[in-house]
Amino acid sequence: MTTLMKNSHTRGPLDHSVREQVVAAATEYFSHFGYEKTTVSDLAKAIGFSKAYIYKFFDSKQAIGEVICSNRLAMLRDIVLSAIADAPTASEKLRRFFKALVEAGSDLFFHDRKLYDIATVSSRDKWPSAVAHEAQLLQLVQEILLAGRQSGEFERKTPLDEASHAIFLVLRPYISPVQLQYNLDTAAEAAQHLSSLILRSLAP
Amino acid sequence: MTTLMKNSHTRGPLDHSVREQVVAAATEYFSHFGYEKTTVSDLAKAIGFSKAYIYKFFDSKQAIGEVICSNRLAMLRDIVLSAIADAPTASEKLRRFFKALVEAGSDLFFHDRKLYDIATVSSRDKWPSAVAHEAQLLQLVQEILLAGRQSGEFERKTPLDEASHAIFLVLRPYISPVQLQYNLDTAAEAAQHLSSLILRSLAP
Repeated sequence: MTTLMKNSHTRGPLDHSVREQVVAAATEYFSHFGYEKTTVSDLAKAIGFSKAYIYKFFDSKQAIGEVICSNRLAMLRDIVLSAIADAPTASEKLRRFFKALVEAGSDLFFHDRKLYDIATVSSRDKWPSAVAHEAQLLQLVQEILLAGRQSGEFERKTPLDEASHAIFLVLRPYISPVQLQYNLDTAAEAAQHLSSLILRSLAP
Repeated sequence: MTTLMKNSHTRGPLDHSVREQVVAAATEYFSHFGYEKTTVSDLAKAIGFSKAYIYKFFDSKQAIGEVICSNRLAMLRDIVLSAIADAPTASEKLRRFFKALVEAGSDLFFHDRKLYDIATVSSRDKWPSAVAHEAQLLQLVQEILLAGRQSGEFERKTPLDEASHAIFLVLRPYISPVQLQYNLDTAAEAAQHLSSLILRSLAP
């Protein structure tokens, strides 16, 4: 156990594995009992670690939540990236991007309701993981736009920043978990109609 | 008092004035103490009427809330309508429409936080007043679109229903009180960028 006890400045591979163990157990635990109502004590008890031991690896419950949230958001981006990877045109990339985002987000909501609560808290409280996720999606929109401009599919008059930001604003109610929950009933249809509207706005 | 006591099928002008009195008092009361936590008993006590007497005029607390909500939403539509009334073009109408909606909604949020809660409940629970409000705004979008098609400002290829529905979907996170509260910090800027995007999508 001595390796585990060393201070946080010299964390080694074993520490890493303990962190992973805590995150895996916490993911499981939060998905049953929710994030907001659970304390680190509850979690420690369930995993069989002491609270003090968990605090060696994570500064707070939010720090654990952040890792779970980052992992989920990375999964979501992977789904989106693989959905658009082999799209033949930038227009098709944009359609698939929106569709995959809405589907993956709704899936997380319906199949992992309790974990979705972490996502909601993270987006409501602007956690770094949630903020970074939005920035990465905005970046992705910009890349699709740039590709479409280069291929001649999209107009080039509007400043790239302005166009991609506006498109991101259209997507945002379907990206932000705290808002997606109010749009679930119309999300699939909205993804289709809004993609078409966006593509009309991009016509050269 | 006999006039007030007659049954609900033959309500006269005096009944109407009692209803208005209850609504005015309830608006005042809810704006101090909130809607969700207040009961009809609390309200009756505050107004100085008996609970039974209030129930002669309103079937439930929601029925009172519905009237307050309808009144507020009608005010909001009046603001929007007068904002667009003298706009010289359909494009300008659309810009002013979006801007006025966001401003009036944010105003209600910031200056009448407790009453905003009624709007939130009404949109979350799909009250008839909230549903009708959305339908009227969609109708207004369609009228602006039609005017712009007739003047040659907007394209005519996209089916009118589809185009107006898609625009409504872009607006919706700023119309729905339950979502607007999450978009307040970016709402003014969003209204501008999203109007521009919509107008690009409408270019002939």
